[in-house]
Amino acid sequence: MIHRFQGDRDCLSVLVVGSIALDTVETPAGKVVEALGGSAVYFSMAASLYTNVKLVGVAGTDFPREHIDFLSIRGIDTEGLLIVEGETFRWSGRYDYDRNVTETIETRLNVFAEFRPKLPESYTNADIVFLANIDPEIQCEVLRQVPGAKLKLLDTMNYWISGKNKSLCEALGMVDIAIMDESEAYLLSGERDTISGSRKILDMGPSAIIVKRGKYGAMMVSKDDYFCTSAYPVNAVKDPTGAGDSFAGGMVGYLAHAKEFTPQVLKQAMVHGTAVASYTVSEFSIEGLRTRTWQDILSRYRELWRFSYFDDKENMQ
Amino acid sequence: MIHRFQGDRDCLSVLVVGSIALDTVETPAGKVVEALGGSAVYFSMAASLYTNVKLVGVAGTDFPREHIDFLSIRGIDTEGLLIVEGETFRWSGRYDYDRNVTETIETRLNVFAEFRPKLPESYTNADIVFLANIDPEIQCEVLRQVPGAKLKLLDTMNYWISGKNKSLCEALGMVDIAIMDESEAYLLSGERDTISGSRKILDMGPSAIIVKRGKYGAMMVSKDDYFCTSAYPVNAVKDPTGAGDSFAGGMVGYLAHAKEFTPQVLKQAMVHGTAVASYTVSEFSIEGLRTRTWQDILSRYRELWRFSYFDDKENMQ
Repeated sequence: MIHRFQGDRDCLSVLVVGSIALDTVETPAGKVVEALGGSAVYFSMAASLYTNVKLVGVAGTDFPREHIDFLSIRGIDTEGLLIVEGETFRWSGRYDYDRNVTETIETRLNVFAEFRPKLPESYTNADIVFLANIDPEIQCEVLRQVPGAKLKLLDTMNYWISGKNKSLCEALGMVDIAIMDESEAYLLSGERDTISGSRKILDMGPSAIIVKRGKYGAMMVSKDDYFCTSAYPVNAVKDPTGAGDSFAGGMVGYLAHAKEFTPQVLKQAMVHGTAVASYTVSEFSIEGLRTRTWQDILSRYRELWRFSYFDDKENMQ
Repeated sequence: MIHRFQGDRDCLSVLVVGSIALDTVETPAGKVVEALGGSAVYFSMAASLYTNVKLVGVAGTDFPREHIDFLSIRGIDTEGLLIVEGETFRWSGRYDYDRNVTETIETRLNVFAEFRPKLPESYTNADIVFLANIDPEIQCEVLRQVPGAKLKLLDTMNYWISGKNKSLCEALGMVDIAIMDESEAYLLSGERDTISGSRKILDMGPSAIIVKRGKYGAMMVSKDDYFCTSAYPVNAVKDPTGAGDSFAGGMVGYLAHAKEFTPQVLKQAMVHGTAVASYTVSEFSIEGLRTRTWQDILSRYRELWRFSYFDDKENMQ
C-alpha cells in the first residue's frame, strides 16, 4: 500500500532517467550484498511518495523480478524499464565516515554501458523530467524527446564534468535546474567558492543550481536568490547510498505535487527532499523508504522548520 | 567611534579570558605579518558591538601600544590586559582552502606560556564569562573567581581534550555552554556523529553544546532542543582566522544585549554571531570588524533569516 500526499491524482507527472543497480555496500553499520539500488530507483522511490513516476532505465535478465513488481506496486510506471540480455549494473563501495569519503571497490556497468534510452510514447508528455547522473549525451537525447516538459532538471558527476564537458554544457543549456555536490560544483566551475562557482554555472544555462552538501544539507543559488537548508540530524546513518537521488526525488515529487515552481515552493521542495533523504540513510538500500508515508515526511518537514526557526517574519520587515 | 546596539547602557557585562597574539597568516588571498590577533581580541572586537567587554589576557613589552589604544577607544576595558617583560604570543599559519585545513607553521607562546590570570576587582561581578580556548586549569581558576556570573561559556581545542582531559571535564562541569568545532566534538565525545557526540558532552555538564562547522555554519544541541544555522555566504573569504572567536563574541554580545538566555534568544544570538563572523573573514586580521556598526550586523541577520526561510509559522502548527 502506498501512502501518498493528498491530492496526488492532480499532480504533475515525473519522468526519471537513470541507473538501475545491484549495490554491494559496506559501512561501519554493516553490509548488504547486491541490494536494490541505482539513481533511478532511489529517485522513483522518493518521488512516488508524492506523484506518478515514469521510470526509464535498463536492467539485465538477472534482475530479480520481485524488484520490478515492488516498483510497480508502489505505483511507479516501469514501461520504460528495459530488460536486456546480460547482467545488471553492479556497484560496490565502502563508506569511510572518518574521512567523509566513498571508496568505490568495483563498478561493472554491464548492460548499462550500452544504455540508449528510447522513451515509450506514453512518457513523452511528462510534465517534469529528471535526468539522474548519466552520460550527458544521453541527457541531451532525452531532453530532445520531451520538448513540452514544464521543468527539466539534471544531476551530474566528476566523471562527466572531466570526460564529456562539451556535452554536459549542452545539457546544462537545456535544463532549468542543475543538481550536483560540492566537489562537482568546484570542478565544473573552476571556483573553490561555492557561491561564485554556482554563479558561473548559472551562466551555462540553468536558472537555479542546487548544491548537495551531504550531512551539512543543501543550498540553492539563482540569479537573485539564495537558500540554505541543513540536513535532518539523523542519529545513526546506516548507509548514505542514494541520499542525493532521494533528496532529488523528494524535491521533484513535492514540486509535482505543488504544481508550481516559485522560489518559495522550490525552497519547500528542498526541505521535503531533505526529509526524504533522512529516511533513506537510516537503513541500507531502499529499506528506509519502503514503508514511509507522506505523514512521516510532513512530520520531518515540520521538525526541519523548527530546527531552523529563530525569528518571526514580522520582525524581518 | 563605536556604533553599538541601541540600549547598550543597560546591557549585561561580558568578561573574556583568552589570548592576545601577533599573527602571521597566509591565505590564497594574501598575507599579513604580525597582525593583531588572538582569541580574546577577536571575541572582544565582536562583543563590543553590543556591550561592555572586560578583557583578560597577557602581552609582552613588544606589543604595540596602538593596539591597546585601539581596543580602549572601542570601549573594551583593558584593565585586565597584563603587559609583562618578554615577547607577545606569536602564531603563524597557512590556510589551504582546497583541503579545508589550517596548517600551523609556528607557535611561539612566549609570555602566554606563563599566563595565570588574576581578575581585577572590578571584573569579578561580570554577568557573562567567556573562556576562550586556553588551558582548562586556567578556565577552572577563572570560573572560581566569578561565582555570581549569570552565564558561563567555554571554548576548547584538541590540544586540551587530549592533554588535559581531566581539567577540561572539570571546567565543562562548571559552564552553561560549551563551544567547539566538529573535530573537537568528535575527539571529546569519541562519537563520529555530531548529535550523539553532543549528547555525550551534555552529560559532562553544560546545558547546551554549540558546534562550529566553519563554512557550513553552526549547530546547537541541548537536552530537548536542536538548532542549525548556515554560514553567511561570503563571496571571497580572505582570512578565516578569528571566525570562531568572533562568532562567539557576536553571540555572547547579543545575549548580553538581550539580557535573557531563553532557547529562542540563544538561537538568535547564534545568527548574530554568524553575521559578525562573516565580516571577520572578509578581511585579514580584525580589519573586517573595525568599522562595522550594529546596523551592518542587523542587515546580515535579516539576510540570514531570508536565506533560511521557507514556510510560515502558522503552517507549522
